[in-house]
Amino acid sequence: MSWKAIGIFDSGIGGLTVLKELVRAMPQEDTVYLGDTARVPYGAKSPETVTRYSVEIASFLVKREIKLLVVACNTASAVSLETLQERFPIPIVGVIDPGARRAAAVTRNGKVGVIGTEATIKSSAYTRAIKRMNPAIEVITRACPLFVPLAEEGWTSNEVARLTAQSYLEELKESGVDTLVLGCTHYPLLKEIIAQVMGEKVRLVDSAEETARTVADILRSRELLRPAAEKGNHHYYVTDVPAGFIRVGNRFLGGKLEDVHQVNLEEAVARENSHVQA
Amino acid sequence: MSWKAIGIFDSGIGGLTVLKELVRAMPQEDTVYLGDTARVPYGAKSPETVTRYSVEIASFLVKREIKLLVVACNTASAVSLETLQERFPIPIVGVIDPGARRAAAVTRNGKVGVIGTEATIKSSAYTRAIKRMNPAIEVITRACPLFVPLAEEGWTSNEVARLTAQSYLEELKESGVDTLVLGCTHYPLLKEIIAQVMGEKVRLVDSAEETARTVADILRSRELLRPAAEKGNHHYYVTDVPAGFIRVGNRFLGGKLEDVHQVNLEEAVARENSHVQA
Repeated sequence: MSWKAIGIFDSGIGGLTVLKELVRAMPQEDTVYLGDTARVPYGAKSPETVTRYSVEIASFLVKREIKLLVVACNTASAVSLETLQERFPIPIVGVIDPGARRAAAVTRNGKVGVIGTEATIKSSAYTRAIKRMNPAIEVITRACPLFVPLAEEGWTSNEVARLTAQSYLEELKESGVDTLVLGCTHYPLLKEIIAQVMGEKVRLVDSAEETARTVADILRSRELLRPAAEKGNHHYYVTDVPAGFIRVGNRFLGGKLEDVHQVNLEEAVARENSHVQA
Repeated sequence: MSWKAIGIFDSGIGGLTVLKELVRAMPQEDTVYLGDTARVPYGAKSPETVTRYSVEIASFLVKREIKLLVVACNTASAVSLETLQERFPIPIVGVIDPGARRAAAVTRNGKVGVIGTEATIKSSAYTRAIKRMNPAIEVITRACPLFVPLAEEGWTSNEVARLTAQSYLEELKESGVDTLVLGCTHYPLLKEIIAQVMGEKVRLVDSAEETARTVADILRSRELLRPAAEKGNHHYYVTDVPAGFIRVGNRFLGGKLEDVHQVNLEEAVARENSHVQA
């Protein structure tokens, strides 16, 4: 039996934080990552558009014979996970449930805050997931649209970042949450300033680690986990030219990104449609 | 003879500022606007991707029998105007040349600043255009990636906006420019804070008015200008669901946006390709 790869996608580069945890947990696994860098960001787009893009990407990756798909983007997980799970016959794991599970496990006072993009917060996906795990938990949410551009600009610890974090997080802090879910893969880059504003007593939850654990559990239970003696290969696809992805990606992964290819999803869709009609 | 419409496109909603000036200058003209709201923003994307998107949009609009196309997006104008002009047989007007012409005309000390997205600034399109008009003018440029998200968040006059503007504009101010080109259709929303930081003596140039003048000149010289007794109709296409466009667009235009339709450019491309192959 040949071992298939784990597929993983994000609107852009942020999902590499999830990939990093997957590799740490299962260094023997092959991975195929797709970053939709030509259409990033997803956070302000409608659920319909994000779902359409997610289906396109999942179709592309499923054709590459993956054994499991990780939706590493919080926005895509929030609005399109169910559609993907209905549409494709492999296990599909989002980042919302793992993050929610961790938050429900670590809160002591039963008050959990969630921050994310506009689309993620509007979807209420985190609130529903946390309440499914423990209906008694109070969930307070806040969209933080400027956090992604701040992280991409590299302004993660200056006065602008501090004031922005204060403005977004003030009410959350006053509400007395003891746990805060960083519901966007970019937000760990702003972890320090968020921790400063929220204060020492608030525990920050980032979904990446918990998602990797969930993936390992599923593969183990289905006997799809590759023997640990091997060392995995990692392939990357992006929809814009690779240069920016490689530069920033090296910062994310702390290594040398290789094997990055550009793919045109619109053309892939067009080819497929013309094939169907021919 | 039936009068064709003026086509106009932008990565999203910002181009409505240009549309507004077109309508003010030529209220008799019909217009067809396309905002690529599903793939906005263009400012951090590669020239290749922005050009691919621009060609898709231009193809869509040219099929709607327009007589002239306005590229209302600075980023698209900066990186894809020549490709569009080579590819399509109608007059195509960008916003760079009109903005550059105005700046060259109003500067007294021969020092002009230009701010815009990363892609616009990297392209050097404004610098080349200004120097083509007057090689003696010194052009100092600065990318301001956070201005678009700030304008979209509605943070146009708070402390975060002020500090961000100070950080971006400090060197430009110190360099002694007497004219500053707002090289992005979103930036007029931040005009007040930019003016405060730059000081009273610096003249801010926004391309919209000058672009409308250029369009009127071209149509007049080709005898394509509709008789002024008529009143034009305005149609809008967007690539994401129309709700957000209508809400923010009403703020831009100060009116009631009607006749907004969603279009799927990928499907349009796919249909065309399958048609060609059939």
